[in-house]
Amino acid sequence: MYKLILVRHGQSEWNLSNQFTGWTDVDLTPQGVEEAKRAGRILRDSDLDIRFTYTSFLKRAIKTLNYVLEEMDRLWLPVEKTWRLNEKHYGMLQGQNKKEAVSVYGEEQVRLWRRSYDVAPAPLPDDDPRHPKFDIRYQDIKYKDARPGTESLQDATRRIIPLWNVGIVDNLRKYKQVLIVAHGNSIRGIIKFMKNMSNEEIVKLNIPTGIPYLMELDEEMQVVTDKYIGLSDEELRELQESVANQTKTK
Amino acid sequence: MYKLILVRHGQSEWNLSNQFTGWTDVDLTPQGVEEAKRAGRILRDSDLDIRFTYTSFLKRAIKTLNYVLEEMDRLWLPVEKTWRLNEKHYGMLQGQNKKEAVSVYGEEQVRLWRRSYDVAPAPLPDDDPRHPKFDIRYQDIKYKDARPGTESLQDATRRIIPLWNVGIVDNLRKYKQVLIVAHGNSIRGIIKFMKNMSNEEIVKLNIPTGIPYLMELDEEMQVVTDKYIGLSDEELRELQESVANQTKTK
Repeated sequence: MYKLILVRHGQSEWNLSNQFTGWTDVDLTPQGVEEAKRAGRILRDSDLDIRFTYTSFLKRAIKTLNYVLEEMDRLWLPVEKTWRLNEKHYGMLQGQNKKEAVSVYGEEQVRLWRRSYDVAPAPLPDDDPRHPKFDIRYQDIKYKDARPGTESLQDATRRIIPLWNVGIVDNLRKYKQVLIVAHGNSIRGIIKFMKNMSNEEIVKLNIPTGIPYLMELDEEMQVVTDKYIGLSDEELRELQESVANQTKTK
Repeated sequence: MYKLILVRHGQSEWNLSNQFTGWTDVDLTPQGVEEAKRAGRILRDSDLDIRFTYTSFLKRAIKTLNYVLEEMDRLWLPVEKTWRLNEKHYGMLQGQNKKEAVSVYGEEQVRLWRRSYDVAPAPLPDDDPRHPKFDIRYQDIKYKDARPGTESLQDATRRIIPLWNVGIVDNLRKYKQVLIVAHGNSIRGIIKFMKNMSNEEIVKLNIPTGIPYLMELDEEMQVVTDKYIGLSDEELRELQESVANQTKTK
């Protein structure tokens, strides 16, 4: 039985200020650090034996992983960082307050941008200094997908799938238990793909920060069981509701 | 021109208590954290453009690298962790206070264990729970050298050289600038090898914690220039003297 564990990074500065973040490289808040450490303690106290880890190119995920590994006393585990696990790029919305966006564009448009599967926000112009093509970390990557001006969840899922095919599956076979620390939408992309969820189902899935999500896989890498670990049912429900309520204006 | 940058980890808990550490996985002290951050700021403020990093399997080096990368705002850089960069294994001396060891074994014997090239301390017995063969991180490595009961500097240098041959050289060609965060003796091993230093020369070389050491290499990977960066000559001399004085009993 193979085990894949997914963890969404702890609260970031822009989660706190309720701004669209996307590929903006903001830091964790002190609460986010605590969430990361809690995830590490849950994994340490479980009977899991994680041997390989992935994270994105963004510091809120990388630092979450570092805190998790430190709490597990497994800082020595291999870490692969990849742009393919980055958050969905939010285009021109990056930096905008979520409730402000609702006032400007209307609730339905913002809901579409946040929660439709195939609608992407307006892209950053090619000469916007925030465009990934000006960011040193993406410059030498041969795939054009590594320098998007905006992304739908579909776009994000499409650039995640190659990582599954040529990396994660191999590492699951080799290491048996693999941890991924990533972002709300990159984790959605993985879960959609692995569970064959519909476009409608996946956009309704709300992933709390810092709670390990364990998927057990059979020899064909099909999901046998999946669940959050380390939380009571009530704690979990409260967390999921708080994520779902982020764009409500009152 | 290729650039290889070496950084010795910041002060550890057992540096502070003056105990032999070796492969014991002790943490950084608060001062060690500050030294790590200072190294990161020196690298950030330099004109270097580091693109690949190495560290050991020991948390004092891994955490130093993490602090360095955070100060550089390059947490996204690839990190390869390897047992080959671990500190020299100090056998039965691990855990013993350095001055106490001098009282017990005499200054000359301790000097030999610390500073001779080919004399290893008495080994940990095969059934000692501190032996690397009982440590999960070394169990699946196919090389027996990854589970030593003790090491001379010669032993440590021998297990570092394969990393140069099959890893570091390739990554220097690919990435041009490579950072290694490691330990006093694993850095000695690298410098001896790269500069063809004699056994006598290398044991006299004292490497301060948290000061980046820059080696510029030509197309044949031969050292053209090498120097510490970010410190005045006087600051550097003081640091080197403090390392050299560690075993003096008064």
